Amino acid sequence: MSRRKLFGLGAAGVAAAGAGGLATRSLVGEPPAALAVDHVSTPVPFYGEHQAGIVTPAQDRLHFVAFDVVTDKRAELVELLREWTAAAARLTQGREAGASGAAGGPPEAAPDDTGEALDLPASALTLTVGFGPSLFDDRFGLADRRPAALADLPKFPGEHLVPEISGGDICVQACAHDPQVAVHAVRNLARIGFGRVSVRWSQLGFGRTSSTSRAQSTPRNLMGFKDGTNNLKLEDDRLLREHLWARGGDWMAGGTYLVTRKIRMTIETWDRTSLAEQEAIFGRDKRAGAPLGRKAEFDPPDFAAKGPDGKPYIAPDAHIRLAHPSSNGDAHLLRRGYNYVDGSDGLGRLDAGLFFMAYQRDPRTQFVPVQMALAKRDPLNEYIKHVSSGLFACPPGVRDAGDHWGRALFA
Amino acid sequence: MSRRKLFGLGAAGVAAAGAGGLATRSLVGEPPAALAVDHVSTPVPFYGEHQAGIVTPAQDRLHFVAFDVVTDKRAELVELLREWTAAAARLTQGREAGASGAAGGPPEAAPDDTGEALDLPASALTLTVGFGPSLFDDRFGLADRRPAALADLPKFPGEHLVPEISGGDICVQACAHDPQVAVHAVRNLARIGFGRVSVRWSQLGFGRTSSTSRAQSTPRNLMGFKDGTNNLKLEDDRLLREHLWARGGDWMAGGTYLVTRKIRMTIETWDRTSLAEQEAIFGRDKRAGAPLGRKAEFDPPDFAAKGPDGKPYIAPDAHIRLAHPSSNGDAHLLRRGYNYVDGSDGLGRLDAGLFFMAYQRDPRTQFVPVQMALAKRDPLNEYIKHVSSGLFACPPGVRDAGDHWGRALFA
Repeated sequence: MSRRKLFGLGAAGVAAAGAGGLATRSLVGEPPAALAVDHVSTPVPFYGEHQAGIVTPAQDRLHFVAFDVVTDKRAELVELLREWTAAAARLTQGREAGASGAAGGPPEAAPDDTGEALDLPASALTLTVGFGPSLFDDRFGLADRRPAALADLPKFPGEHLVPEISGGDICVQACAHDPQVAVHAVRNLARIGFGRVSVRWSQLGFGRTSSTSRAQSTPRNLMGFKDGTNNLKLEDDRLLREHLWARGGDWMAGGTYLVTRKIRMTIETWDRTSLAEQEAIFGRDKRAGAPLGRKAEFDPPDFAAKGPDGKPYIAPDAHIRLAHPSSNGDAHLLRRGYNYVDGSDGLGRLDAGLFFMAYQRDPRTQFVPVQMALAKRDPLNEYIKHVSSGLFACPPGVRDAGDHWGRALFA
Repeated sequence: MSRRKLFGLGAAGVAAAGAGGLATRSLVGEPPAALAVDHVSTPVPFYGEHQAGIVTPAQDRLHFVAFDVVTDKRAELVELLREWTAAAARLTQGREAGASGAAGGPPEAAPDDTGEALDLPASALTLTVGFGPSLFDDRFGLADRRPAALADLPKFPGEHLVPEISGGDICVQACAHDPQVAVHAVRNLARIGFGRVSVRWSQLGFGRTSSTSRAQSTPRNLMGFKDGTNNLKLEDDRLLREHLWARGGDWMAGGTYLVTRKIRMTIETWDRTSLAEQEAIFGRDKRAGAPLGRKAEFDPPDFAAKGPDGKPYIAPDAHIRLAHPSSNGDAHLLRRGYNYVDGSDGLGRLDAGLFFMAYQRDPRTQFVPVQMALAKRDPLNEYIKHVSSGLFACPPGVRDAGDHWGRALFA
């Protein structure tokens, strides 16, 4: 049984006990049995070999922010990264951003925490930092440290990127079970960065669209489909080594590369499409999420199998086939996207879609070929539009209190 | 102890048992004791004398939508209200929007539910409808049914309203503990309304900023303050009769009036203000939320009390004093607002603030005088800007399956 079904809190956040039978949407009446809730309030460790927020079981809420660095002084940037790291180590453990906090400091000073998360638990907050290609220009002496894998993405057919909500020198992904906790963290990092960085763009998301652990159920995107069944998961040790973590002896060893894409969905058009066409486009059954021609969500798709009409169950251009590792030189991604609704678009429609995020060892051989295949052939393109793009080198984890984000990069 | 502290789910949503000691933000380690979770998955009744979503203990997530009616046919509008009511009765009980659902209908037809809430529980979803002044123009023959209390709001000093995100013929407030459930409901109402209504604007919110029940703790706004301590609450029978529910024999009897205001906060400026100034502006202590000069949040403010310096503890223009019923002819409001972050503003700042909503018997004697006093004198105005405004007559509840939203209005 999916624990997510009980809470909308992310399956891994909740350990259910004796709560069978609660999973149907039509439940009325009986209050559920007692439940144990652990990860919801328990903090995620901040220090480690890798950054948290990547293989950490995907929390249900996102606040993603991209900053432009506005100082041109390398020392100020390094000092900011030091201050941010100290704040992140506190915030992720459910503490206030600074030592005196929102209400404990001298009355004549501005508080060193903004206060809206006072009383709220850690909510599994993770803060994950990444460095964009633009940071490696001539401002900070980093040009020769730009990793080859941080190559600019090519232009993909059909994309309509808006520069103002794309790119950025530094990104921070804040994920938590409570949006107020994620927002609080981003807002305090922006506050600390005043005069050194400026918010370029930011994105809120809800309803994680991927699982990153086998303990989590697969959630649904705003097209109503399960769409992350074959995601890389934290239990996949070998696959993570091969496809997720950067290698070599440079500053990125133990890090990974993040691609973000804001994918607007024309949900009004999708909603008028027949069930049969929707299922054919995805290559999955809508209710169970099973590959067409199979029975259950996790049954592997059989791309060769043909139905009674002699045609393949899964169409040659079905999304599940085009995106599958077997169609892309065994390229795997660790997806960690979120649904979004940004109000409406002024044209009578909701402004809604998927904020896609994927971590990988090398976008040149992973995201790029997969997305190129999708951009050229995926019939989903009739219903989606890529409007923002980001690419970031996410360094390895912070080892201890003497370490900080980007230390090896600036060493 | 606040149950909200455990989950960020809204205190009323969660009944905690034996979980003492979890309330601090610095908790690490021990998983909490068993917890009983009821309202999170239990549906809120749809039928009743009053609409749900008003005195219902405030859920933690909001999707608010304002529609323009695009048909000019009265019969089509009435039929839409009928269809919406039937869908709302289903959705609020955790069912799909239509009888065949997202994946159960004929393959050649578009599904009558969009599917992203399949497997999710009701999450205390409420759907609350309201009719704006513009619905009472000459399109639908309703001009002589416009209630006197639905008088256009005056222009308030300092407001900067954006017409495109203000007003609207019909509003729906969707509140739930899971944003995906609230978004799903609004999206399906928009889908059902295709060709008859068009989304004018919509707003997502998180972190309810008011309590509507004494069982709920007072949450914090994005200025870090508790700011709804003296709200009308569902337990206040006499006050609700006097200040909330419309009277008389017309179609609004048992209904109420909703004012919405999107209040942008310049949080970056606020965050550089001293703790003493922040507390003086609100008239409350930041950590406990106590009125200045008192000890605890629910201690009544003593506006006459003076400190050792001979000045009143609570300044003459403190927010708590200006907004208090004693300063406004005993005007009470049932506030039901939410925090929002809409990404960033393109100028290096988060686009964040409060989506204020208040229900009342007559805005002319309740919201208007309170807001006029605040607009003229509140020192908070230095840090906020009203950018959107809405006014809606919310009819009484739907009595049973033979009734529908607005039946008495169109009778």
